[in-house]
Amino acid sequence: MRNEEFTVEGRNPVTEAFRSGREIDRLFILDGCQDGPIQTIKREAKKRSLTIEYVKKERLDQISKTGAHQGVIAYIAAYEYAELEDILEAARKKGEDPFIFLLDGIEDPHNLGAIIRTANLAGAHGVVIPKNRAVGLTATVAKASAGALNYTPVAKVTNMGRTIEELKEKGLWFVCAAMDGQVMYDLNLTGPIGVVIGSEGDGVSRLVREKCDMTASIPMRGDIDSLNASVAAGVLAYEVVRQRRGVS
Amino acid sequence: MRNEEFTVEGRNPVTEAFRSGREIDRLFILDGCQDGPIQTIKREAKKRSLTIEYVKKERLDQISKTGAHQGVIAYIAAYEYAELEDILEAARKKGEDPFIFLLDGIEDPHNLGAIIRTANLAGAHGVVIPKNRAVGLTATVAKASAGALNYTPVAKVTNMGRTIEELKEKGLWFVCAAMDGQVMYDLNLTGPIGVVIGSEGDGVSRLVREKCDMTASIPMRGDIDSLNASVAAGVLAYEVVRQRRGVS
Repeated sequence: MRNEEFTVEGRNPVTEAFRSGREIDRLFILDGCQDGPIQTIKREAKKRSLTIEYVKKERLDQISKTGAHQGVIAYIAAYEYAELEDILEAARKKGEDPFIFLLDGIEDPHNLGAIIRTANLAGAHGVVIPKNRAVGLTATVAKASAGALNYTPVAKVTNMGRTIEELKEKGLWFVCAAMDGQVMYDLNLTGPIGVVIGSEGDGVSRLVREKCDMTASIPMRGDIDSLNASVAAGVLAYEVVRQRRGVS
Repeated sequence: MRNEEFTVEGRNPVTEAFRSGREIDRLFILDGCQDGPIQTIKREAKKRSLTIEYVKKERLDQISKTGAHQGVIAYIAAYEYAELEDILEAARKKGEDPFIFLLDGIEDPHNLGAIIRTANLAGAHGVVIPKNRAVGLTATVAKASAGALNYTPVAKVTNMGRTIEELKEKGLWFVCAAMDGQVMYDLNLTGPIGVVIGSEGDGVSRLVREKCDMTASIPMRGDIDSLNASVAAGVLAYEVVRQRRGVS
């Protein structure tokens, strides 16, 4: 699934990737590895607030493409990330109230790609993803986005809660999707808005949820628990589209 | 991806699968193969209106799990199919107007699973898929449905156009999703309804589209062409949910 050109293995190649300023999505280091070059890589990761994933040799061997990982493997982003400001600027340029997707830990690259695709078509100005514990802009995500990654800016932030606070100061309201919220049709989703979608397994985390102004639930009339994350994002996004349409 | 227990290879095993009455999703036969046992299998396939896919030896070898396919491989459905009548009965039992999804050629098992999941949660009474040129109920579909396949009946039909005609006689209206339709918010989607979703690449086929009473478009405000098929199905299904909710 993962494109080889975006996997960097071995001490020198990973150190070079950091030096060249390329965006690193994930960093795996052999558990217990302590020598000089590895320490240098750890320092670089810390500077960028990148969480290191310490793994056993078997796991490293498994994700290695070359078999020569020397105890360290990095995943490089296939696409460049945007800044939060780029997203707000996109809204300003169009003369529209900001409409942003915030994804609190989407792990499946097909879901992330499908959500970026939906964001583009729903007229959202950008997508925000967290730096850690989530999939980044891999080649699989780019493919699943059906080209939307070329148009819709995706920003990566260290702390989703803090980002919500920042955006609130710029006038955005936040709605998160959760089962025990108010039925989405009864909420006012017009105006500058951030739509928060949780991870596939756990939904929106408590800390992020507490920052949101509203909790929207999608009516569930069936026997199972929840919609697929990208479908839920689409359904909620289009309720925003419907309500904005009525207003403008 | 495909679960081994649902792949049957070799002349006797495939003949047995037909005899036992198990539902066969796809049948691959070596191009040019003409001997007795293969002729028997071809006759069985014809009886069931199952399209035979004639392939080269390389392709058969590639999909073979055992390496002993003897020129024939069948894919068995991982789940049992329902009858169209079962779906209508489910609506009657709940005292609701029928609400059915008809999928005109979904090919990706993850999309099919996600759509069955959505059908369940949107309160639809069942899903109809075509016998040919589409993915059936494989183990991957079952997994992507997140358990919905245990509750939501899926019927497989030979001719989608004819099925629409049959259901029209029972009072259903049909809406298909297409880009050049009327904006879905402006259509009346209440009452007994069939929602028709096209294939990932080609959308709804012309013959099926001509049978539909309405063509609904999801507003597209972006730079790319279309939503992911399972997201589009979710967005349209929830517009039906919203409108039904206002009525009851």
